Amino acid sequence: MTRKIAIIVASGTGSRMGGDIPKQFLPLKGRPVLVHTLEKFLAISGCEIILALSAEGLAYWEPIAREYLPADAPITLVTGGETRFHSVKNALAAIDAGDALVAIHDGVRPFVSLNILLNAFVAAESFGAAVACVDSKDSVRVTEGAGNRAVDRRTVKLIQTPQTFRLSVLRTAFEVPYSEHFTDDASVVEHSGQAIHLIEGSYSNIKITTPEDLALGEIFLGQTAF
Amino acid sequence: MTRKIAIIVASGTGSRMGGDIPKQFLPLKGRPVLVHTLEKFLAISGCEIILALSAEGLAYWEPIAREYLPADAPITLVTGGETRFHSVKNALAAIDAGDALVAIHDGVRPFVSLNILLNAFVAAESFGAAVACVDSKDSVRVTEGAGNRAVDRRTVKLIQTPQTFRLSVLRTAFEVPYSEHFTDDASVVEHSGQAIHLIEGSYSNIKITTPEDLALGEIFLGQTAF
Repeated sequence: MTRKIAIIVASGTGSRMGGDIPKQFLPLKGRPVLVHTLEKFLAISGCEIILALSAEGLAYWEPIAREYLPADAPITLVTGGETRFHSVKNALAAIDAGDALVAIHDGVRPFVSLNILLNAFVAAESFGAAVACVDSKDSVRVTEGAGNRAVDRRTVKLIQTPQTFRLSVLRTAFEVPYSEHFTDDASVVEHSGQAIHLIEGSYSNIKITTPEDLALGEIFLGQTAF
Repeated sequence: MTRKIAIIVASGTGSRMGGDIPKQFLPLKGRPVLVHTLEKFLAISGCEIILALSAEGLAYWEPIAREYLPADAPITLVTGGETRFHSVKNALAAIDAGDALVAIHDGVRPFVSLNILLNAFVAAESFGAAVACVDSKDSVRVTEGAGNRAVDRRTVKLIQTPQTFRLSVLRTAFEVPYSEHFTDDASVVEHSGQAIHLIEGSYSNIKITTPEDLALGEIFLGQTAF
């Protein structure tokens, strides 16, 4: 079975939450958001984790790791860069040679299901690049100059993480210079010529970016065994 | 000042909530979702309401109206049709001649702010068609045949209600036969050749379609004066 690696991007700051603590460290049912996320990957047999933290985040991380995670958890820390692209690039530099499947996942998406993660690894092995998404529940319009036009909602996919790739695909893709069009990992990989395979994500696989998201997260945790 | 009319579309069934009660009649902090929505429009001086209900919904409506709304509330009932298009068409048939601005709004979007509603009427008066939207927080891909491609997230607008129009624009637009491409009112109006002006909606202006949405709604109501 191919080696499995998760790159967890958790180098964001807390500004959108209106507080000083970056959102990945805020408590969700008594445990930091990031711990919930990491536990999803720790549940996958043999999965190694590379965690990208900002220098500021490192100070939060140390006591959290001591309190909530086993001392032998297979987690390697790397310094997050200025953008997500740079963080992933740093994480890739920390992976030694050889074949692997790499799932890149937001540290603030703790509600991803094990099923989605396993599907992502399987699809990445087959297709080279597998990205979780959901359909838009809303009608969608696209702006064009000063105007805008309706697009067929059935063709619109809202992109989540995990975004999972064969390591070789990812290494090739991240050799390019940074561009502001790289809004996610799939856009970098697509730029290298690799087709992106879409897999089904979940409406509960939310990104925690506001206090309301945290409150919604508490509801999710109250309702379902995660 | 131009006459203001709201068409509230509340003819949906409860199937997505997993219950028997259509979601617009479910309680939110002790009052039905639809009552919260109607109160937003009743707060606008002189605004008349046309409420589209299914035949099933009418049975729920009568006791709700008696309990929660003033007897002289300016609400006219019409029967909802098979689709949103048909419901709006029935509502338009209930409006007498003359000039007016018409805001079409989902019965299950109770968190719309008064500010958005007033902006919508003002913009519809200037532009003929004004539609509330928010930016996508997620990266977006569009499927094309078997593949898909990234689209610039900054050009993608997720559409909400109110969708507000000059009555004459709406009447002309709804004279066409129904098409399955009409996913919202703006798509019908755009089909008639009218340009759509976008106005800023709000991330809290959610459509209540799942039990999680209802729980999130309770959080919103606990935090802010709506």
